[in-house]
Amino acid sequence: MSFLHDEIFEQPQVLRTLIEAEGENATEIAALVRERRVPYVVIAARGSSDHAALYAKYLLGTMNHLSVALATPSLFTMYQSPPQLKDALVIGISQSGESPDIISVVSRAREQGALTLAITNEAGSPLAQAAEHVLPCHAGVERSIAATKTYTAQLVAVALLGTALAEDETLRGELQAIPDAVEKTLTLSEVVQRAAERYRYMEQCVVLGRGYNYATAYELSLKLKELTYVVAEPYSSADFMHGPIAIIERGFPVIVIVPHGAVYDEVKSLARSLQEERQAELIVISDQDEALALAKTPLWLPVSVEEWLSPILCIIPGQLFAHHLTLVKGFDPDHPRGLHKVTITQ
Amino acid sequence: MSFLHDEIFEQPQVLRTLIEAEGENATEIAALVRERRVPYVVIAARGSSDHAALYAKYLLGTMNHLSVALATPSLFTMYQSPPQLKDALVIGISQSGESPDIISVVSRAREQGALTLAITNEAGSPLAQAAEHVLPCHAGVERSIAATKTYTAQLVAVALLGTALAEDETLRGELQAIPDAVEKTLTLSEVVQRAAERYRYMEQCVVLGRGYNYATAYELSLKLKELTYVVAEPYSSADFMHGPIAIIERGFPVIVIVPHGAVYDEVKSLARSLQEERQAELIVISDQDEALALAKTPLWLPVSVEEWLSPILCIIPGQLFAHHLTLVKGFDPDHPRGLHKVTITQ
Repeated sequence: MSFLHDEIFEQPQVLRTLIEAEGENATEIAALVRERRVPYVVIAARGSSDHAALYAKYLLGTMNHLSVALATPSLFTMYQSPPQLKDALVIGISQSGESPDIISVVSRAREQGALTLAITNEAGSPLAQAAEHVLPCHAGVERSIAATKTYTAQLVAVALLGTALAEDETLRGELQAIPDAVEKTLTLSEVVQRAAERYRYMEQCVVLGRGYNYATAYELSLKLKELTYVVAEPYSSADFMHGPIAIIERGFPVIVIVPHGAVYDEVKSLARSLQEERQAELIVISDQDEALALAKTPLWLPVSVEEWLSPILCIIPGQLFAHHLTLVKGFDPDHPRGLHKVTITQ
Repeated sequence: MSFLHDEIFEQPQVLRTLIEAEGENATEIAALVRERRVPYVVIAARGSSDHAALYAKYLLGTMNHLSVALATPSLFTMYQSPPQLKDALVIGISQSGESPDIISVVSRAREQGALTLAITNEAGSPLAQAAEHVLPCHAGVERSIAATKTYTAQLVAVALLGTALAEDETLRGELQAIPDAVEKTLTLSEVVQRAAERYRYMEQCVVLGRGYNYATAYELSLKLKELTYVVAEPYSSADFMHGPIAIIERGFPVIVIVPHGAVYDEVKSLARSLQEERQAELIVISDQDEALALAKTPLWLPVSVEEWLSPILCIIPGQLFAHHLTLVKGFDPDHPRGLHKVTITQ
């Protein structure tokens, strides 16, 4: 087996540890955010961590009514002319905590007087030192280059912060049930393994999600690019309608992430029109029979959770698909060509 | 010829009219923004307009030290749980001013007491009515489905706002010179026409830009998808290093937008490593000989402008390339398959 495989299967335990260890810390950080009446949040992140930031945009937006901006690190590093951030909560998200551009945003924000937080798997990293507060991810060492357990841990860290800000015990209870739900979802591995065979010669695809699962579309696309070298393009179903839909012709593979929730009907009806009007080939990740029925390859989520938690589940069949497709294509899951675990960008 | 062709060539005149007509209006809006000491900006937009929003993120960030968040319209329309925006400047950008999701963000923000602005080509549109202030784009009717003149007009509208906020006459003067620079850049059309032939069977490509020209990478990718059905993936050079670079193998086409400026060295060195280490085929849009020398297909900008204005120039060879490649591939530039001029998304 591979590190990638093992780390995918470590996720339930990682998430249990994280929820157990950091609940109180999240509550304390949330109290400071409330006290300062922070009007908006800025998040700096790259790669998979940036997808956790996308999740935060929706979670902190709906649950806590906070506007979230994704930082443009080059304003800090290249242009040396950063925005004024003193009123904001500024969060750096990074597995390694080592990327200089992310550290720059957080350090500069802290100098300006902003409340700063690092969400990182390395509690002793330069990013953790740069920020005033730290939410460590407790994922253990991640040896695979493609992030899996550190990604879902980042999602849970964001969810810990959101639920702590909301001070809502029901939400906290829902979050505590997520490691078991992830464990059940991992039983899909055999189904996904059989399904992956069909995509041996797939060279490109589109991945659609909206709302909370916009992040899932981005993260699954990145896994496919890193591991299988498939040119996978992520879209929100709404953005996709504004032009890119033109690329879809008969047989074009489209992965649709469409669990139940507020955006379900809209995403499902786009999936239906792609299948009926453009004869796209659909791979559907869902807990809903009607959406799954549209798919050539349905990936049925064995557990239903609240929509705000669904990205933590929906990425699981995606990770499994990327993993099995890597093997089907004869590539090495632990050594994608030309990538390193820690990417240093300015 | 096509509407697309004609509208690409109308751009110098459109931009002249816009700068002439809206300078004073931009100054008045800027005065209100300064008066309210707006700490951050939220922009709602889709498609090409969203790329103008990306430009605004860099321009208002470096020039005016404002944090800019791209809105997540589904928080307003689908989740019915929008963020608190009363302290923000909230801008809706839309060619038609008709997309309900963009209108929702602006109306709701205005109800919350935010300062609201519409940047639209339709001064009588629902979006223009929803916002307290309007910056009309004066592009005239755009009949091609793929946006060209309305996109560069939106960039100039954003630049009018940024320079007005900065109250800097030098910057205003630089902006006034841009329509002539666009006109000179359009002389590239014949060179681009000859170059396009080679890409008759290109099915996928990557488009790289960073900083100000991150927007250009997105906009050029969208033109290629809408018009030529090439699966074109846009990336900032920094994000590209965090995983997606794995897809690049010998001969993979990469379009690099790399004019002189603060990010030039970094983007050029990525281009060099793609060419030397991975044998990618480069199409380079630049005003710098050293960067152009890396390209199989160099697209030389005949005019150099300040980096903050370069996205208005750099998209021109991109538009011309998308236009000519559409013809080379035998598609209809005015009727991309299954697209409509006004896309209605919730």
